[in-house]
Amino acid sequence: MTLGPGYTPRQLQIDAARLNNTLHETCKWGCAHRWGDRPTETGMCRLALSDDDRKVRDWFVGETTRLGCSVTVDTMGNLFAIRAGKQGGAPTAMGSHLDTQPTGGRYDGILGVMSAVEALRTIHCAGYETEYPIAVVNWTNEEGARFSKSLHGSDVWSGGYTLKDAHALEDVARPGVTAASELERIGYDGGTPCSHWNNPLAAHFEVHIEQGPVLEAHRERIGVVQGGQAYKWFKIRIQGRDSHAGTTPFDYRADPMQAAARFLLMTHDVARSHNGLATTGIFRLEPGSVNTIPNHVEFTLDIRHVDDAVLSAMEAEMRARGEGLLQTDSRHQCTMTWEFLQDNSATHFNADCKAAVKEAALASVSPAEVREMVSGAGHDSCATSRTVPTAMIFVPCAGGVSHNPSEYATPEDCALGAQVLLDAALLYDSR
Amino acid sequence: MTLGPGYTPRQLQIDAARLNNTLHETCKWGCAHRWGDRPTETGMCRLALSDDDRKVRDWFVGETTRLGCSVTVDTMGNLFAIRAGKQGGAPTAMGSHLDTQPTGGRYDGILGVMSAVEALRTIHCAGYETEYPIAVVNWTNEEGARFSKSLHGSDVWSGGYTLKDAHALEDVARPGVTAASELERIGYDGGTPCSHWNNPLAAHFEVHIEQGPVLEAHRERIGVVQGGQAYKWFKIRIQGRDSHAGTTPFDYRADPMQAAARFLLMTHDVARSHNGLATTGIFRLEPGSVNTIPNHVEFTLDIRHVDDAVLSAMEAEMRARGEGLLQTDSRHQCTMTWEFLQDNSATHFNADCKAAVKEAALASVSPAEVREMVSGAGHDSCATSRTVPTAMIFVPCAGGVSHNPSEYATPEDCALGAQVLLDAALLYDSR
Ligand SMILES: NC(=O)NCCC(=O)O
Ligand SMILES: NC(=O)NCCC(=O)O
Repeated sequence: MTLGPGYTPRQLQIDAARLNNTLHETCKWGCAHRWGDRPTETGMCRLALSDDDRKVRDWFVGETTRLGCSVTVDTMGNLFAIRAGKQGGAPTAMGSHLDTQPTGGRYDGILGVMSAVEALRTIHCAGYETEYPIAVVNWTNEEGARFSKSLHGSDVWSGGYTLKDAHALEDVARPGVTAASELERIGYDGGTPCSHWNNPLAAHFEVHIEQGPVLEAHRERIGVVQGGQAYKWFKIRIQGRDSHAGTTPFDYRADPMQAAARFLLMTHDVARSHNGLATTGIFRLEPGSVNTIPNHVEFTLDIRHVDDAVLSAMEAEMRARGEGLLQTDSRHQCTMTWEFLQDNSATHFNADCKAAVKEAALASVSPAEVREMVSGAGHDSCATSRTVPTAMIFVPCAGGVSHNPSEYATPEDCALGAQVLLDAALLYDSR
Repeated sequence: MTLGPGYTPRQLQIDAARLNNTLHETCKWGCAHRWGDRPTETGMCRLALSDDDRKVRDWFVGETTRLGCSVTVDTMGNLFAIRAGKQGGAPTAMGSHLDTQPTGGRYDGILGVMSAVEALRTIHCAGYETEYPIAVVNWTNEEGARFSKSLHGSDVWSGGYTLKDAHALEDVARPGVTAASELERIGYDGGTPCSHWNNPLAAHFEVHIEQGPVLEAHRERIGVVQGGQAYKWFKIRIQGRDSHAGTTPFDYRADPMQAAARFLLMTHDVARSHNGLATTGIFRLEPGSVNTIPNHVEFTLDIRHVDDAVLSAMEAEMRARGEGLLQTDSRHQCTMTWEFLQDNSATHFNADCKAAVKEAALASVSPAEVREMVSGAGHDSCATSRTVPTAMIFVPCAGGVSHNPSEYATPEDCALGAQVLLDAALLYDSR
């Protein structure tokens, strides 16, 4: 194969069938929640550091090794499959995550890693020599579903979260089971420090389903992602007083379930009034008996806005109005505490990386099919962008549905995403 | 001891110290939730058919056998300790329950059984011969905390609930663990049919803490209970659609958590407007991830009113308004289903039994210290009263607090309650 001084988009071409086969083949680990008759019509439940996550990691290590990479495992279990280039130095990375939501789909994260593996295969099979090393990265617990910190592995790597805090996080459903203990249990507690200082990358590219309805609604095929909206997570506890459901008049109650109901409606009011979002995805109460008013409820709050300042204003308003909601006419009052879980400020991607993605996109589709857009979700790229040049590629997904078993992207869109990823990474590498 | 033709109240006298010692001594089985420094300053967690329940049942069988009783165990695990009288026939019973709430106290139910045991001891030690047999009864799962049916054992006995349904009920926290399997596990699946036809009683008397603030507030010492208010329990499920917290606009959401919040506030509005009560004590959602809108929530609803017709009107209004709350401006709608758990109509106790209780009370305290009152809570006596003459005695409890570890009744009030129980039962027996 003759190679010019730089790489030209589509000079190498990914194999669409091979990509889609691998994508679905590896979904056997964590396959769950059937919603249709065809073999691939299921969702996924592959929680970070579970047995199924271990199995797909084992596959990842074997496959990338076979494709000429050496694999580094860091202290957060992030996997870096690195293929040497003509020169040494930090690799240009293509990465995403293999963990899913408990009722997740087959694309969120998985498409990003499988596209990167397909890009690697294409490079390997063509005998193409990159200028610098390239890497395929699988980041640990991007979802934050099992351990309540999204971009868990990538954020430690980029310095936004300490390894100590990250290791100490507990399984949301199994107190005492930590990220550290699960890393050890599945054998992915690697020796390389989880840090961009010790284990640097030159850039990070990621393809992902949009997870929203915009591209599909406009019949567009590629999103050139400009950055991500800001979001914060909290765990909120309301303490009341357990008492008898049949003998305790309303004005003798301190009922944390009622206080929580008022609070949840208020968070939506506040979010709506700022054009932001608010969600409660985990909720528990104690002691849990039909005829006992609970003494305690705890729940999570996820709030989002494209603008950091507005997000802070939303939080402040929710805190203030939340306190007010506790002042009922009862003789007994509930009390409320907010535990901070994470704060992801708005992300703005790197101009060179965005330009590489746009150039790659325009080599495959028409300008009318390309949109510059902001991500509603957080991504590993939001973490890496704090330290290395980063950009992302979105492909449409059906109805904008994600974090749901029926999440779907067409094989053609998946292949197009992988091609744009390969082209963008090689453009970046060759300049 | 010389005995007249009938029994005179206070002819036999209970031993206050012995009663209170036994009450607290047997709380070692299930002792939990310390709230003060003194040995008895804890609550209880003795869920029905748990290991601790088995231990206190073993004690009950041993102690009542020692006091001259033969013990019958029925197919619901209800225990009948029967002491022969001069004549045969159905026994006059004194009963209550030894199970507690998960965050329960040392008096609810326990005082009733221990007072009955103390009455039995007093009779036994005095060599007093009752006209008819007398019984001390421990009813299974009165609380309905572990298996969502209150008056579980007594309601089967009195014909208000089928044995089949009662056996099939599952532990609220451990699906697949049933009342039947737990009865067998702890060895209290007795051979006597659980039925007032096969195993009759002549009457049922029960002493219980009030669980409300009325007696204490009026400085009264004995409540002559006229009956109990009506209540119904439901399990309500709201089905939505799981989707991404960061990418799903409000008007694309079917968020069952928000629907539930609206629903819970509505149930309180409706209950307030009818002078009734509404409580949600169990609440769960699926799948439980910070950044995923839940697809499903389920929770219990306990509604109460002194009047059966008003309770039905409350239910109808909640059902109608509940449906209305699902009609939001989103493109996606939640759906709701109601599962019926139990219906306890208002109870009206027997005139002769109430008269015996009142006469017994007035033998120990002044008329100004006695109140005729209605119970806010359900009791085993509400079940027995459907088939046999029944009445209850209330004693004050601190602040009206119950279903809480700090539940408290003074030793003097406990002793007074036991004395009135003994006197009422023997008055009834001797007439
Ligand atoms: N892409 C994605 O679903 N990431 C999870 C982090 C978030 O909650 O936005
Ligand atoms: N007494 C008592 O707490 N009984 C439980 C049944 C009820 O919920 O009222």
